[in-house]
Amino acid sequence: MKSIAWGARTAQSKLERMEIERPDPKDNEVTIEVLYAGVCHSDIHQVKNEWKNTVYPCIPGHEIVGRVKTTGSATSRFKEGDLVGVGCMIDSCRTCDPCKQGDQNYCEGPNGWLATYNGPMTPATETEDNSNIYGRDNTFGGYSDVVVVPEDFVLTIPDGLDPKAAAPILCAGVTTWSPMQHWGIEKGDKVAVLGFGGLGHMAVKLAKAIGCEVTVLTSSPDKLKDAIRHGADHAVIETDKTALADYMGAFDFILSTVPEKHEVGALLDLLKRDGQFVVVGNLDVIDGVDNSKLAFRRQSIAGSLIGNLQETQDVLDFCAANDIAPEVEMIDIEEINDAYVKIENGDVRYRYVIDMKSLS
Amino acid sequence: MKSIAWGARTAQSKLERMEIERPDPKDNEVTIEVLYAGVCHSDIHQVKNEWKNTVYPCIPGHEIVGRVKTTGSATSRFKEGDLVGVGCMIDSCRTCDPCKQGDQNYCEGPNGWLATYNGPMTPATETEDNSNIYGRDNTFGGYSDVVVVPEDFVLTIPDGLDPKAAAPILCAGVTTWSPMQHWGIEKGDKVAVLGFGGLGHMAVKLAKAIGCEVTVLTSSPDKLKDAIRHGADHAVIETDKTALADYMGAFDFILSTVPEKHEVGALLDLLKRDGQFVVVGNLDVIDGVDNSKLAFRRQSIAGSLIGNLQETQDVLDFCAANDIAPEVEMIDIEEINDAYVKIENGDVRYRYVIDMKSLS
Repeated sequence: MKSIAWGARTAQSKLERMEIERPDPKDNEVTIEVLYAGVCHSDIHQVKNEWKNTVYPCIPGHEIVGRVKTTGSATSRFKEGDLVGVGCMIDSCRTCDPCKQGDQNYCEGPNGWLATYNGPMTPATETEDNSNIYGRDNTFGGYSDVVVVPEDFVLTIPDGLDPKAAAPILCAGVTTWSPMQHWGIEKGDKVAVLGFGGLGHMAVKLAKAIGCEVTVLTSSPDKLKDAIRHGADHAVIETDKTALADYMGAFDFILSTVPEKHEVGALLDLLKRDGQFVVVGNLDVIDGVDNSKLAFRRQSIAGSLIGNLQETQDVLDFCAANDIAPEVEMIDIEEINDAYVKIENGDVRYRYVIDMKSLS
Repeated sequence: MKSIAWGARTAQSKLERMEIERPDPKDNEVTIEVLYAGVCHSDIHQVKNEWKNTVYPCIPGHEIVGRVKTTGSATSRFKEGDLVGVGCMIDSCRTCDPCKQGDQNYCEGPNGWLATYNGPMTPATETEDNSNIYGRDNTFGGYSDVVVVPEDFVLTIPDGLDPKAAAPILCAGVTTWSPMQHWGIEKGDKVAVLGFGGLGHMAVKLAKAIGCEVTVLTSSPDKLKDAIRHGADHAVIETDKTALADYMGAFDFILSTVPEKHEVGALLDLLKRDGQFVVVGNLDVIDGVDNSKLAFRRQSIAGSLIGNLQETQDVLDFCAANDIAPEVEMIDIEEINDAYVKIENGDVRYRYVIDMKSLS
């Protein structure tokens, strides 16, 4: 089926309008009219081939909110007109241990989970026709009029959640929610959020709603007040040694949302015994991991990748129940290239969401 | 009180016989006639000032087995002649959260826990007389005829454990036991032990007795057979990519006992989802921590430092109950300098223990 989308033709290209071909929906799939698409820093990494695996044309967009248009004959969960969401994944192998245990985001099938765009992420298995288990060469994301998704990977947007604000919860929200759930963050815990952008500001809202004492560590002086305004109890410049002296050994949990390589050495001093430092913002080498610090307080450093389907539904429901949502700035699709520059400069407050009405 | 010991006068010195002054025993302390002292790689690091904090003269030895000689008026746990052990700590602040929770090895008091030798480890607090909470300038270890230790930090050597073999359990044993307990290693888990020396061979014996499937990763081809002989199910050269291909994503837990800086990058591929990589062998920077690996399997890297008193008693009792013990090679104190060279060359199989009868 034909679809209108905005995407990049090369790593050097600006995004432009194009017509693409999507696979016709299968029996287990629904088609979704895209209403809103959040703009994630990953979109920029992928468009610019910064992870060295981009297939072109590249149509980004994995924070998708829309309305169900058609439902396949083997579907049962949705009906036409339902308000739904799609996050970073649209399928997984469904047979590996992680999939069977509900952790589709850690799928160990031959091609990993199927990314909403630029999927399959891992190379096709060594078959004669270069095929992969999903039978799709390159998935196209949500900067588009329509997406086609297996119903199992479609989330329900709960009543009471502004559909525009729901979009970023599907990636920025669940990416920070999942590690807090996995490592058992609970009321009373002292949590630091490193970086205060799209992910960081969601992490603050979620941790506060859980009941944590939250400190923002940022490199941007102009974000200090904003962090407090969004509910953080404290906000500190991460290189201000005088200010940080008050936070030595203070945190149970530090969540790094910085979207680029970041030295962690000095920050380990801020963790309690048995504290956990989790990196969700980037996929780079973590410099400064020093066992003369880790060992003396039995600290751990870990990575975490988005979240599973249940966690994604949970965080949507949690946001609706607790009346929290990301702070979004609506843009038209024609503004997307300017928006990318602003995101790279840290100028967005805090998540751009594309109004897909602007596509027509 | 006067004591005979072997120690180093400078970072360049060989160990030599010397007379030292030990504090007279307090009411809560016992004096212990040293029978056996294990030789730990840490002894060498400390003697050579490789951690930049050595006070001289330096009398090493923190794997001590001996007999109680005198008991202070405020002691109650031991009587003269009891066979006892002393590990890496002889005191802690006893008032901080970790101490109150039984984790003396993570003491957060002003001077940290009191190391058996070269303690206090952390600088004296800013007092006029440069004093610390322990009132001792520099502790002297077990390469000696006698040690003086608060009874709370004295372990019981259980019946059925060869006292010579018990010595290395007090450091090498508990250092590998503690993280396995903390991270919940249990029967059926797949455990890799990186490095097969004093710590590594104890880790294999303990993990096997717990019921794990154990793989040794070593850089020494001549240790492969030995690893199997000591109970490992598999043994692989850690740089043999062909052999390692069979172990991709295989391990729940990797314990690094390598006593020097070690790149971990390629080894992360061997961990399962939610796998834990724990470094106990060295206090260096951990190179190669790459979040493009950690995040995709939610892996963690952590440090762990020896173990607490209860864990130390537990591992002694566990070894006695399961009839396991380190493989020790007995030496006289005059052989200590040669032994250090052999340990640095990886030539010891697997732990030297000094017979303190040779002191007289």
